[in-house]
Amino acid sequence: MDAYTESMQRLIAALGKLPGIGRRTAERLAFYLLDADAGETAALAEALGDIKTKVGRCSQCGGMAEGDTCAICASPRRDRSRLCVVEKAKDVIHLEATGGYDGVYHVLGGLIAPMDGVGPERLDLARLERRVAGGEVQEVILALSATAEGDGTVLCVADRLQGAGLRITRLARGLPTGASLDYANTGMLADALRGRQDVGS
Amino acid sequence: MDAYTESMQRLIAALGKLPGIGRRTAERLAFYLLDADAGETAALAEALGDIKTKVGRCSQCGGMAEGDTCAICASPRRDRSRLCVVEKAKDVIHLEATGGYDGVYHVLGGLIAPMDGVGPERLDLARLERRVAGGEVQEVILALSATAEGDGTVLCVADRLQGAGLRITRLARGLPTGASLDYANTGMLADALRGRQDVGS
Repeated sequence: MDAYTESMQRLIAALGKLPGIGRRTAERLAFYLLDADAGETAALAEALGDIKTKVGRCSQCGGMAEGDTCAICASPRRDRSRLCVVEKAKDVIHLEATGGYDGVYHVLGGLIAPMDGVGPERLDLARLERRVAGGEVQEVILALSATAEGDGTVLCVADRLQGAGLRITRLARGLPTGASLDYANTGMLADALRGRQDVGS
Repeated sequence: MDAYTESMQRLIAALGKLPGIGRRTAERLAFYLLDADAGETAALAEALGDIKTKVGRCSQCGGMAEGDTCAICASPRRDRSRLCVVEKAKDVIHLEATGGYDGVYHVLGGLIAPMDGVGPERLDLARLERRVAGGEVQEVILALSATAEGDGTVLCVADRLQGAGLRITRLARGLPTGASLDYANTGMLADALRGRQDVGS
């Protein structure tokens, strides 16, 4: 006999579908929520509904937005001459967390992955070309993963934007900050060598 | 600038309040939920509401119930002559998972903890006495934690039920199944010695 009531079973099943949450954790969370303040549970339920109804895509960059335009595209303080191209909305959060970028973004919505049948037509490239054609953009930074898919997409996007008189860059590649040389693999070391930087004469 | 939209910020804050879920995990879950099927998110939100509105206490044992009586108390297959006293509703789940008990339960709602100012009056003892006085119960099994609070509560409950002509038992105590003697502490070993079992002559 399953000693949980039906609502608890449904909550445990729903929590157990979340990534990284197994059956035991789902049970622990469900018991916590059962005893939690009703306001806390209601806030969670409401936020779940809101992200589905309120959060959409920014009409300019394709990132997360409530309303037509995201806070970054709407900000008068962002430098519109630099456009950082990312795979997904989450990447914008990571780049913003560095505090080292004040340009705007463009979310491609994926990477070209021929093995998975994802071609360039699945990415938001047409809008990127239109934005660049506007004339305001001077540099396009391709902030994509250092993987085969990322590299392939860099080549494709760079090719599409060629001849527009833009500076096209991609993220630096080398040793991950904090890493010991002992743990660097060959590809990492080769990239670090190729991209070596002057430290003075 | 916080690059999350307002709904996402609220969802991350609500998820981050759950036990064992830090900021990074909350962000990961929020992004998963943002991309998840709307039905999955709705099921979670609905289950959250349901546990607050539908799950209450069983009028007989004090365990989790939807409606007046829990599935265990309502079942005609449970042996009403044995009553297992537990601290909280979650303990019922653990004991049911053993598959080794077919009696009924009584949820005390806590343990006596003089250091925290929790006296016997805070526990559901009056109803336990009424149930026992009904005459159907022949054995009361005190399935409480092997801690100072658990032991104190065992003594108190046993004292309250004394003279009712019942068998009163508590859970066996000794080496945890699977444990090596090397890791057993003194208290564990002393209990295991006291409770030693015959293995034949």
